[in-house]
Amino acid sequence: MEELGKKAMTGDVRAASRLIRNIEDDIPGTTKAIKHIFPYTGKAHVIGITGAPGAGKSTITDQLICTMRKKQKTVGVLAVDPTSPFTGGALLGDRIRMLRHAEDPGVFVRSMATRGSMGGLSKAVGDGIHVLDAMGKDVIVVETVGVGQQEVDIINHAHTVIVVLVPGMGDEVQAIKAGLMEIADIFVINKADREGAKKLYRETLSMLEMGNFPDGWRPPIVMIESSLEPHSFAESVDKLFEKIEEHYKHLIDNNLIGERITRKAITEMNDALRGAIMEPILKKLVSTGELDNMIKKLVNKESDPHTLAEEVAEKYIKEQG
Amino acid sequence: MEELGKKAMTGDVRAASRLIRNIEDDIPGTTKAIKHIFPYTGKAHVIGITGAPGAGKSTITDQLICTMRKKQKTVGVLAVDPTSPFTGGALLGDRIRMLRHAEDPGVFVRSMATRGSMGGLSKAVGDGIHVLDAMGKDVIVVETVGVGQQEVDIINHAHTVIVVLVPGMGDEVQAIKAGLMEIADIFVINKADREGAKKLYRETLSMLEMGNFPDGWRPPIVMIESSLEPHSFAESVDKLFEKIEEHYKHLIDNNLIGERITRKAITEMNDALRGAIMEPILKKLVSTGELDNMIKKLVNKESDPHTLAEEVAEKYIKEQG
Repeated sequence: MEELGKKAMTGDVRAASRLIRNIEDDIPGTTKAIKHIFPYTGKAHVIGITGAPGAGKSTITDQLICTMRKKQKTVGVLAVDPTSPFTGGALLGDRIRMLRHAEDPGVFVRSMATRGSMGGLSKAVGDGIHVLDAMGKDVIVVETVGVGQQEVDIINHAHTVIVVLVPGMGDEVQAIKAGLMEIADIFVINKADREGAKKLYRETLSMLEMGNFPDGWRPPIVMIESSLEPHSFAESVDKLFEKIEEHYKHLIDNNLIGERITRKAITEMNDALRGAIMEPILKKLVSTGELDNMIKKLVNKESDPHTLAEEVAEKYIKEQG
Repeated sequence: MEELGKKAMTGDVRAASRLIRNIEDDIPGTTKAIKHIFPYTGKAHVIGITGAPGAGKSTITDQLICTMRKKQKTVGVLAVDPTSPFTGGALLGDRIRMLRHAEDPGVFVRSMATRGSMGGLSKAVGDGIHVLDAMGKDVIVVETVGVGQQEVDIINHAHTVIVVLVPGMGDEVQAIKAGLMEIADIFVINKADREGAKKLYRETLSMLEMGNFPDGWRPPIVMIESSLEPHSFAESVDKLFEKIEEHYKHLIDNNLIGERITRKAITEMNDALRGAIMEPILKKLVSTGELDNMIKKLVNKESDPHTLAEEVAEKYIKEQG
């Protein structure tokens, strides 16, 4: 395993791919490789892209790769697939397009899906970022569907967060937009040629006007028309990248990067704690048949979940710590 | 707290509201009330409604309340708000409409949001269902945005799962649809008057044709036009409720309900275990300053998350259990 980590650090694409697959599948011993590479990480600028399903995140990420390559940046992409407890991590249509960069040694694209238990995806993404980082990628893009708490945890692995909005959705989307307001460093309004784009722009702007920005960074709104002709699409994504670089510079110039690094560390620590504490206990409860027994008791109303869980805690947790 | 549970069981709306708020806010001692009411739960038919943001779930739920009231059913609704780590659980516009049922003593609508740590929302929803169940509601509707793993956990609290689709979304939505295929008992195609509705119907149908249904239940597709005139909207929701009742009857007649009850129990047990094991350890790490120390070590690259988490596990977890 450590060998795999060492090889990934030399930029070995096959070793890195294998390592990411092992992280995803939660293969025992994978943490050894991560422990090995961890001291060499922390150099890359990690960008998170999130938004509702169908907002066009992958299309933008794909074009962003082109922009960054023009600027001589090496790029790693983690496309996070939240649907996969069922689909087994199928590559989505839009993401297949990104594979056109496969021939370029400066680009490394991988998708990542949950297979394990809840909360495992954020841990996997954190470790996946470490792999791309240790490979020496200048920029790492993490793309994920942003709605629930899990997605927020995932996006907390990023230094710069882009929220992609599209016109023509309902009230619920507005509420989600309000929820994303506090994590967005940059807003993108995609499909800006669609009806309602100007209204969405005005709404987002007025929401921003009500906000206060203690960090001195006021999230810009970038309009993108991904469905229009390629040239103007490319230009608007170039502009988006300018804003991304501005944001990163702002973080560095104002000593704010430490705060982002801390946020990232908190997320990683939470993920790792769950992995080291909950997962072994759950595995034991499954292998000893205790979990089955508890489920039976619940179904037969012989006990309730909280009483049973407290019994487990008493059995497995040390009194004082 | 137990008093609150007892009062909620007599149908006391204020006590039930208070209890749900305490569950949401994770007030110490709330589990006592749940333990008290748990033996009296398990009578209600729990319906889950999920789908992408803007699919019209709340509008359908609102109309479904009318249908169920016509049939003399008492109804409880939990509207789950996934955006609230930020918004603090703001009621969404569509959901405000549901408040028109507030005068009807046979209807009890509450929204629920995450405030605590990750995974807490599913536990809160499970406990919230118990409250509505103990109040004696015949049917409980849980409405949530369905994308990630957390939302799947939430929907696993239901006996009958409705997935709401809308035409005019991209590839990503298709993939999510494929992901939801395995949890849907009934599909709704909402905004069926929109362009692309027939195409979506055909696609969903052909996806269903590829599926196999070991339980002998083939998910029906119900077309709904929520934007058209009220009468035909009401009629199509009546039809949806017929399918819901058919599904419940199918579960009962074919001894499949036990399987759903078990799925629900597994979800509750997982939630409760996390609550009883992870949360106290995390609280301790915070109050003793250990977590801060670990974060510092990570930021300074003095250690890595996995090594630190293993140290915590060694300190807090008993050797053999």
